[in-house]
Amino acid sequence: MDVAKGLEGVVVDETRICKINKDDNLLYYFGYEIKDLTEHSSYEEVSYLLTHGELPSRGELAKFRSLAASGRALPAPLKTSLEAIPAAADPMDVLRTGCSMLAAVRPETPKNTLEAATPLSHVFTSMLLYWWQFHRSGRRIDTETAETTVAGHFLHLLHGAAPDELHRRALDVSLIVYAEHDFNASTYAARIAASTLSDLYSCLTSAIGTLRGPLHGGASARVMQMLDRYKSADAAEAGILDLLANKGRIFGFGQRAYSTADPRNAINRMWADKLSQADGDRLLFLVAERIEQVMAREKKMFANLDYYTAVIYRLCGIPAELFPPIFLIARVPGLVAHVMEQRAHNRLIHPSSKYIGPAPRALPAAAAHGPNAR
Amino acid sequence: MDVAKGLEGVVVDETRICKINKDDNLLYYFGYEIKDLTEHSSYEEVSYLLTHGELPSRGELAKFRSLAASGRALPAPLKTSLEAIPAAADPMDVLRTGCSMLAAVRPETPKNTLEAATPLSHVFTSMLLYWWQFHRSGRRIDTETAETTVAGHFLHLLHGAAPDELHRRALDVSLIVYAEHDFNASTYAARIAASTLSDLYSCLTSAIGTLRGPLHGGASARVMQMLDRYKSADAAEAGILDLLANKGRIFGFGQRAYSTADPRNAINRMWADKLSQADGDRLLFLVAERIEQVMAREKKMFANLDYYTAVIYRLCGIPAELFPPIFLIARVPGLVAHVMEQRAHNRLIHPSSKYIGPAPRALPAAAAHGPNAR
Repeated sequence: MDVAKGLEGVVVDETRICKINKDDNLLYYFGYEIKDLTEHSSYEEVSYLLTHGELPSRGELAKFRSLAASGRALPAPLKTSLEAIPAAADPMDVLRTGCSMLAAVRPETPKNTLEAATPLSHVFTSMLLYWWQFHRSGRRIDTETAETTVAGHFLHLLHGAAPDELHRRALDVSLIVYAEHDFNASTYAARIAASTLSDLYSCLTSAIGTLRGPLHGGASARVMQMLDRYKSADAAEAGILDLLANKGRIFGFGQRAYSTADPRNAINRMWADKLSQADGDRLLFLVAERIEQVMAREKKMFANLDYYTAVIYRLCGIPAELFPPIFLIARVPGLVAHVMEQRAHNRLIHPSSKYIGPAPRALPAAAAHGPNAR
Repeated sequence: MDVAKGLEGVVVDETRICKINKDDNLLYYFGYEIKDLTEHSSYEEVSYLLTHGELPSRGELAKFRSLAASGRALPAPLKTSLEAIPAAADPMDVLRTGCSMLAAVRPETPKNTLEAATPLSHVFTSMLLYWWQFHRSGRRIDTETAETTVAGHFLHLLHGAAPDELHRRALDVSLIVYAEHDFNASTYAARIAASTLSDLYSCLTSAIGTLRGPLHGGASARVMQMLDRYKSADAAEAGILDLLANKGRIFGFGQRAYSTADPRNAINRMWADKLSQADGDRLLFLVAERIEQVMAREKKMFANLDYYTAVIYRLCGIPAELFPPIFLIARVPGLVAHVMEQRAHNRLIHPSSKYIGPAPRALPAAAAHGPNAR
């Protein structure tokens, strides 16, 4: 009996959402190349594309933006719960719990899936930063802003002021590249919940809990810790060579979906460079660039999506604890697309296993056992 | 390219926990047959078996029981959140949200998995019934009881008094038969979260959200609605024949893991019969028995686990809304066993897909698009 551990190479379903061309290192959302989308589209357009299958007209986009921003004022029961989540919690616990609670506060009905789903990137941003500010600054912030984009809303709530245009656009592009990536652990978790006909919030809650794992959504925060160790590009090179010699772990490299490059990395590198030039302090970018060169030269390994993300987020003033939640917030439209696709062509997901445990055996006669053993 | 939709027949991993013998309609937990366990063991022993791989000695059982009952007094932040969950919420939303919140209040650490996991059936019972009583009776109940078993604790908190021995044991047996059932949607969801090295609560939260779907954990509540329609066995027979003629849906029948009978059904039927005799009102049991006979005669279909569960729970005074949460509470040790097994032999679960969407295409040149479109 063949055991497909990890489902490696097992084709589990058909999909129209995302295509990865491994040989040519290309990524497409509904046929549009990721590079084109990051150059010419906004995250809101991409969110619409992922949840509708086509780019919006001007009128559709305006309507979508306005629906997306509509739920940002948090209902009172949700605020009460967010305040009750301890300051020391993992921010992913906050999103997972808040998403789960939303199911009871703003339930999905058979007819309102897109109305419920469209505001969620904004709502998750509000939840996360309400909790963050409540515990960090002691303030109950107003989670309404004049911002019309998720990127603007996030930076505004984090910094308490309208962000500058360069930061806003850098985060917008980052949300685009994180928005979708075919079948992976968290996306498949959402589809499994959908396959039992569970509600949208249950599907997303599953995805959040799955993305939370260090093998999945935590890489960019670890890249940040690594980059912060080095005070010059030369020191970084020496440090990485030393790590390689001692088989230490280096984060942000490799992605088995591509053969020689992650197509999102060139986009990220360009934005990290741009932000770092605007900032004036080039150190972090130069350290990152040098480590990327060393890894290519020494290990023929390429940087993945999470690598320069750390540089971009740091230069936008975002603390590393919030990197994984941004990944999740960005991924919402991709997850919603997969939930809808699973529902539209559903079959209950129910795998088989190979039993290798004890042979059938009789219960021991020991007096310790039995329903009345106390 | 073969598409393994629903993972039907795909062997995704090896397991030592549960064996199903389809041809002979037999179910084993770590080699012990389900019938033996329900006749001679308690749910607490079975919980220990599932999470340790062997039945406990008398001393181990005493220690386990005491640890299991140790976390039933709910921490204040959790009570605050439970009170904030609306009265109209689905009780599964309450368990999913409460479980997610526990991650922040009583975090799992690399060394405390079993200490964190062992009390969860008791804690989930406390959470569920704290919320239930708060909204139904307006009381903030004390979730500590003198009961030493999950079954006793559940019935005590629900009815506000020590349950009688027959009800306690009937629910205990029901928890045993629900405790584990190999790979299925919710169990696999928990294993996927575990495969990213996410924490125990994330894994269980995923399982709860997946079990919540009507194709998975909701059957016994639907059986209850169906049985309640009929005022005599003859009326039930006529009604079911009518439903069959009109292709109406009948709940609680069929289970593809077995060929001709669900081994848990004979156990359930016996307990439903026993409770109904003790109760004196035989109607519900006789209606259920007749429908079972009609389905066997007319459709050669056998009743599954969820069928007589409805009768048992009703006769224990449990409202139908709480049937799915009991399934989940019972399943905790099985889920914990699978999370631990996944971690012990881990490979990240990451399936592949077959792309059938749009071919690569250029972005439209329309002026509506672009990062500055507002």
